[in-house]
Amino acid sequence: MDKALEKANILIEAIPYIKKFTGKTFVIKYGGSAMIDEDKKKLLIEDIVLFKLLGIDIVIVHGGGPFIKEALDKLGKDAQFIDGLRVTDDETMEIVEMVLSGSVNKEIANSIQKNGIPSVGISGKDGNLLKAKKIEIENGDLGFVGDIESVDPSIIKTLLQQGFIPVVSPVAKDENFDTYNINADYAAAEIAGSLNAEKLIFVTDILGVMRDVNDKDSLIHYMDLDVARKNIEDGIITGGMIPKVECCISAVERGTKQVHIINGNLPHSMILEIFTKQGIGTMFIKGGQDE
Amino acid sequence: MDKALEKANILIEAIPYIKKFTGKTFVIKYGGSAMIDEDKKKLLIEDIVLFKLLGIDIVIVHGGGPFIKEALDKLGKDAQFIDGLRVTDDETMEIVEMVLSGSVNKEIANSIQKNGIPSVGISGKDGNLLKAKKIEIENGDLGFVGDIESVDPSIIKTLLQQGFIPVVSPVAKDENFDTYNINADYAAAEIAGSLNAEKLIFVTDILGVMRDVNDKDSLIHYMDLDVARKNIEDGIITGGMIPKVECCISAVERGTKQVHIINGNLPHSMILEIFTKQGIGTMFIKGGQDE
Amino acid sequence: MDKALEKANILIEAIPYIKKFTGKTFVIKYGGSAMIDEDKKKLLIEDIVLFKLLGIDIVIVHGGGPFIKEALDKLGKDAQFIDGLRVTDDETMEIVEMVLSGSVNKEIANSIQKNGIPSVGISGKDGNLLKAKKIEIENGDLGFVGDIESVDPSIIKTLLQQGFIPVVSPVAKDENFDTYNINADYAAAEIAGSLNAEKLIFVTDILGVMRDVNDKDSLIHYMDLDVARKNIEDGIITGGMIPKVECCISAVERGTKQVHIINGNLPHSMILEIFTKQGIGTMFIKGGQDE
Amino acid sequence: MDKALEKANILIEAIPYIKKFTGKTFVIKYGGSAMIDEDKKKLLIEDIVLFKLLGIDIVIVHGGGPFIKEALDKLGKDAQFIDGLRVTDDETMEIVEMVLSGSVNKEIANSIQKNGIPSVGISGKDGNLLKAKKIEIENGDLGFVGDIESVDPSIIKTLLQQGFIPVVSPVAKDENFDTYNINADYAAAEIAGSLNAEKLIFVTDILGVMRDVNDKDSLIHYMDLDVARKNIEDGIITGGMIPKVECCISAVERGTKQVHIINGNLPHSMILEIFTKQGIGTMFIKGGQDE
Amino acid sequence: MDKALEKANILIEAIPYIKKFTGKTFVIKYGGSAMIDEDKKKLLIEDIVLFKLLGIDIVIVHGGGPFIKEALDKLGKDAQFIDGLRVTDDETMEIVEMVLSGSVNKEIANSIQKNGIPSVGISGKDGNLLKAKKIEIENGDLGFVGDIESVDPSIIKTLLQQGFIPVVSPVAKDENFDTYNINADYAAAEIAGSLNAEKLIFVTDILGVMRDVNDKDSLIHYMDLDVARKNIEDGIITGGMIPKVECCISAVERGTKQVHIINGNLPHSMILEIFTKQGIGTMFIKGGQDE
Amino acid sequence: MDKALEKANILIEAIPYIKKFTGKTFVIKYGGSAMIDEDKKKLLIEDIVLFKLLGIDIVIVHGGGPFIKEALDKLGKDAQFIDGLRVTDDETMEIVEMVLSGSVNKEIANSIQKNGIPSVGISGKDGNLLKAKKIEIENGDLGFVGDIESVDPSIIKTLLQQGFIPVVSPVAKDENFDTYNINADYAAAEIAGSLNAEKLIFVTDILGVMRDVNDKDSLIHYMDLDVARKNIEDGIITGGMIPKVECCISAVERGTKQVHIINGNLPHSMILEIFTKQGIGTMFIKGGQDE
Repeated sequence: MDKALEKANILIEAIPYIKKFTGKTFVIKYGGSAMIDEDKKKLLIEDIVLFKLLGIDIVIVHGGGPFIKEALDKLGKDAQFIDGLRVTDDETMEIVEMVLSGSVNKEIANSIQKNGIPSVGISGKDGNLLKAKKIEIENGDLGFVGDIESVDPSIIKTLLQQGFIPVVSPVAKDENFDTYNINADYAAAEIAGSLNAEKLIFVTDILGVMRDVNDKDSLIHYMDLDVARKNIEDGIITGGMIPKVECCISAVERGTKQVHIINGNLPHSMILEIFTKQGIGTMFIKGGQDE
Repeated sequence: MDKALEKANILIEAIPYIKKFTGKTFVIKYGGSAMIDEDKKKLLIEDIVLFKLLGIDIVIVHGGGPFIKEALDKLGKDAQFIDGLRVTDDETMEIVEMVLSGSVNKEIANSIQKNGIPSVGISGKDGNLLKAKKIEIENGDLGFVGDIESVDPSIIKTLLQQGFIPVVSPVAKDENFDTYNINADYAAAEIAGSLNAEKLIFVTDILGVMRDVNDKDSLIHYMDLDVARKNIEDGIITGGMIPKVECCISAVERGTKQVHIINGNLPHSMILEIFTKQGIGTMFIKGGQDE
Repeated sequence: MDKALEKANILIEAIPYIKKFTGKTFVIKYGGSAMIDEDKKKLLIEDIVLFKLLGIDIVIVHGGGPFIKEALDKLGKDAQFIDGLRVTDDETMEIVEMVLSGSVNKEIANSIQKNGIPSVGISGKDGNLLKAKKIEIENGDLGFVGDIESVDPSIIKTLLQQGFIPVVSPVAKDENFDTYNINADYAAAEIAGSLNAEKLIFVTDILGVMRDVNDKDSLIHYMDLDVARKNIEDGIITGGMIPKVECCISAVERGTKQVHIINGNLPHSMILEIFTKQGIGTMFIKGGQDE
Repeated sequence: MDKALEKANILIEAIPYIKKFTGKTFVIKYGGSAMIDEDKKKLLIEDIVLFKLLGIDIVIVHGGGPFIKEALDKLGKDAQFIDGLRVTDDETMEIVEMVLSGSVNKEIANSIQKNGIPSVGISGKDGNLLKAKKIEIENGDLGFVGDIESVDPSIIKTLLQQGFIPVVSPVAKDENFDTYNINADYAAAEIAGSLNAEKLIFVTDILGVMRDVNDKDSLIHYMDLDVARKNIEDGIITGGMIPKVECCISAVERGTKQVHIINGNLPHSMILEIFTKQGIGTMFIKGGQDE
Repeated sequence: MDKALEKANILIEAIPYIKKFTGKTFVIKYGGSAMIDEDKKKLLIEDIVLFKLLGIDIVIVHGGGPFIKEALDKLGKDAQFIDGLRVTDDETMEIVEMVLSGSVNKEIANSIQKNGIPSVGISGKDGNLLKAKKIEIENGDLGFVGDIESVDPSIIKTLLQQGFIPVVSPVAKDENFDTYNINADYAAAEIAGSLNAEKLIFVTDILGVMRDVNDKDSLIHYMDLDVARKNIEDGIITGGMIPKVECCISAVERGTKQVHIINGNLPHSMILEIFTKQGIGTMFIKGGQDE
Repeated sequence: MDKALEKANILIEAIPYIKKFTGKTFVIKYGGSAMIDEDKKKLLIEDIVLFKLLGIDIVIVHGGGPFIKEALDKLGKDAQFIDGLRVTDDETMEIVEMVLSGSVNKEIANSIQKNGIPSVGISGKDGNLLKAKKIEIENGDLGFVGDIESVDPSIIKTLLQQGFIPVVSPVAKDENFDTYNINADYAAAEIAGSLNAEKLIFVTDILGVMRDVNDKDSLIHYMDLDVARKNIEDGIITGGMIPKVECCISAVERGTKQVHIINGNLPHSMILEIFTKQGIGTMFIKGGQDE
């Protein structure tokens, strides 16, 4: 009985969060180990289902690096590099698209449907969602790797209005309708901006932004955009963390209200970040405070 | 951290209940000590707010016996009785209406609004909601005490569609537009039926239907209509319990899917009854099982 | 036959008024003897029904002073005064609310329904319609007497759209959800303004604004706001007339197009004021002329 | 003042009629002297405007015999007859159509617009409203004279929904899209039936059905269909009255609720017939009584 | 088979034109020999039907000079002139209206319906479409000849929305609701402007604007407004061509995107002008180029 | 000029077909050489674009056999067979899905978008479109090869309503959300039935049903269902033709009005089949005749 009552109390505690987020849109960039480990994935999808049932519109953008590597290896396709950047030739692009749009994408949409919520897997090419531009470099040709030039969110809005959860693979087409691989973090940021999303959540393998990478207690829970920029300048945020943080900054600037980096390895990490006061990751905001 | 995770798990456990009840209508007959005790009332209203936020349409029908008695005493109004039934003369009816529609009703609506959900207090006379017929007895005249003749739920539907929680006092008018006091249990049952409500919940001071009134463990969790009828015939359900159970039976027959009797003195009793498998009260159903 | 033809002619004469007012909103402040005398009340409600049938949206705001006094007397409740202003303590407020929202309000709504138009009685607390602020004075505490701070007309619009006539009692809540008695004239003016009403009609016991209170022929039929203000300054409008006129001025300033003071003791006074050229009361307008 | 009050009372007396007819459709067959005499026409159009403002949808179907005769005379066109029926040859039909659809029709629509109500003049050919079939006789060829085969009221409904008063000339086309003159009474009856009109009103030069044509007091105010049929059989209804009454019978059978014959020479005859208890003409009804 | 394939290719070639014009509005000024010659008329109406089926909204405005002359002659009505301009007296206006609104107008609408598209013939008086102002001259009174003062396109929009093709006769009313004959070219231009039409097409008996009236090869296919104005000034455009070109200029200035003059004697001239690159007539555009 | 006129005539000839099919739905089963040969594909997509512009809703279901074979070969995956039927093991299914949903599907959608019509590529798993059931055989386990159990066309309808062309890959999930390869012909037939499609068009490498496979002139243009069934019984339709014809029969039985088999190698074969009287393939109909 006491147990049951405690449950009731926890549901009651969720009230202010439900009030705040019902009718809003969350864009989730799904990546890291939580894409591979079946148990972690199961918990993450439960979080998504709960959000949806609480009246929150969900859009998922996924990556797929490990799956691409596995497929290229299986086919004995050697990777080529220019200045450390991988070259995506015609044949590679074909494999990348099949893996991302035909396998990873459909698998995620199907897992959501298994939990009773209708979902549709599309690529950034479908419905002219994402328009790309080839990335030009000086020392050669990276092939079919592109930046996002513009977003037409009509297809996403159409699916959300009818109650579907759209799952988007990071593949786009340029003005000649050639296919390009694009960065999934930036795809998520652009889509979130075009939807004026309430939240953009990066599901990663790190806890968030830490003052000291080796000290879990140095995790920064709230980070103002100006502070974030200054930390990059001052060398406090370093290495692989820099592009992630820059993407978060860019997302807030493009119209997303709040951007989160969370660790997808922690069970129910999204619920914990969103439905508790302190959260478990780092939240980026303009002006330094949550409303 | 473990605490937070447990919270997340409890929210996740609520998923099937949310899936089941979103978009449905619950009619709550609010009565007993939970109307008087401020602490109990607060918890009960939290339950109502949670239901609303989970997308459930809520209608409240209330009684007000103790408040009426208090007002009549204060005015030195002597009660008259015929065969043990109280007579509601003209002046008494006026006081009854003021207490029910002007005090108790507005207080409940206001308490809900205090929790952030817009609510509107109306009486059964408003918008021609309830039409009454005088109860005729052989040995005299009970005055303005009526049975419900018909229900026009338009005003309730109008308010629900715009997101308000309607709170209804058990006062109705007859074909001559005279005002009558009506039984709040039956008012709730009739309104629930006219809305094809998913659930009608009687908030009372008893645990539910018990095989032995003195043994809490004899509580019957699920009761089929046929069994209920037979138990009355066989003298298993007795005394003041009979009209309550008859009202439950009548509500299911009128189109409500499930009817619950719960003890409003238990904290969060509605959440516990609705969101846990066994529940804490008695649920009446046609054909003996929950779908 | 001639009689019948005259009737037809009178209906035909109404055409320009119907053309002008169909689809507009009239807010009626219902007060004075026409609330008490059953015959006067009957005629007034007939006027309201005619307006409604001609396609005019009607909102009624009522007072209730005499009924409150009667109830307080019956309960032997002594009135307290500070500087001549009555103190509304906790217990008084409770009685005031019961009388206004539970008795007077429901009685008016019911009378309209008796004439075949569905009506709903609400208080200013319902649907967060009126938000009050305590009136602070220097020499003591007037208790639960408030000014209107803001209006949310959603509930009124919801009811009008579905064809109901809303009847509003002058009771509001402050930011702590405490209940306050408010001035019904100002409540009507604020509600009319929030609805951009075409007309606000004060049903009173006086003919209108008169140059000489003892001379019926000195009645002013049209009064420009500037003239009204000047007349107060110049001492032409005096005594109890001042707050009434100030309320009319304020209503026009808040967005109501035309404000009328009429004598509810004259039969069909509203029809006569609205549907005849000269009218029978005083009409306040900006810029001094009717369009 | 007493005068004004009497006016108010007359408006109040109109309430039950307004309640009854708002939102309903009246089809008016406009014919007789009221089409020619400017004063009578003015009064009749005032009646139409009043109906429209009271929320009644109005459709006008007109004849035009005298105007056609005048035009044919002016052109020196000799009329030909077979068994007393006029032959409408190709050239005659052209003139008939010009007079009906290009002159009479536009004049009526324009007169209504002069009174502030937008109106649109169409012929039965427009929007495929009326489909005709040539009337075949044994002793020759009547030319372009047709019966109505079917009605498509879409264009009428389109115009009514947008607030226009449609005015229809009695011209139709057959399956080969040839143009035919049709009987205006039957056109009105067919259109009224296709709209499930509340009323079909024949504006004529006679008072209605009279037991004795020379005795105004013998006017029959209400006539049951069965009685009407029997009166024709029994020779009580005779001569030119027979086709009129048969058309009334047919209109009720086709779905119009009530059919009236009134004298358009009496001022405001339509208002008097519709808005007074006894009326001034003859009303045909199924089952013999008005609801 | 090759024949069939060629057909398919021609349909495929139409794709860019369909893409460009679907959902747009074309106003067609129908005049010249194509109104009289049945074969030319048939082909022209086929073009209109094709446009409609391709999702283009069509409005037709027609003239009727030859038909009016014929009717006046038949009636032995002598024409009067002031400074070479014909006087339209009362009786003439009546005949003009009958011919235009009752004969020509209905005939065109009926011909379209014969091709399976519902059509409605109205005059500029219907639905207050066109408001005219008498043309005043110094040396006398031209009678009922007017300029257009304002356009209310509601009735046109109502008919287009429901899928009808409106056919409009060049007759209007002034502020006193008197009837006027108006220039059909200007009526078409004003209506096109009020609808922000994509195209206004003048169906005439000339090829278009030609540098040398006797040399078909001197036809100008595209004409910029500035060039058109300069050509009039420089005496390159002369005689009867001047008012036509001025009307085209005025139509573009009033909001029509493109205005065409075509020769209605050429079979399928509208399809050829609209669906081929060079066209067969003259197109007037702002800024000198087609978008 | 004559050339241009001929073009106009051909457009005019299309009118009855446009009238007939606007607003209807065509489901196209896209397969055979027209999927591989770029030139044939280009022409076929032009046909689709034309249909769409003429207001026809288009759904594409595609196969992909040759592409799957190529991918399996590249990966050195040996095919296994039971009774001549290929076994689709876990790994094969993964490759099949990637090829169908990630490559072929996206390529078709992208090609349509290149022609200016927004298109979305989905699989039969998305939005719970197709539910499969494993095909059980006696002599072993064919793996993930399924029959269609049910269709939920919501996602297709959502996309059509917003103007997208949905492209569907023949992949479905069973009740355990396992992925299955399904027959594309039957997928197209089931989807067409669930949409009550006007037409289902099989784009193949054969001309249609021929009495003598070696004689092109023996092509049957119209085939009644009963005749088709009889021809199978009588051995007139033989070999690989049998399942195709059975699928056509089943599609008509499931609610599609007309089913076509056409040869995708012929240029613009769809336009020729649909927009010419005799067509170029075989049309299956109930009752033996086109309406």
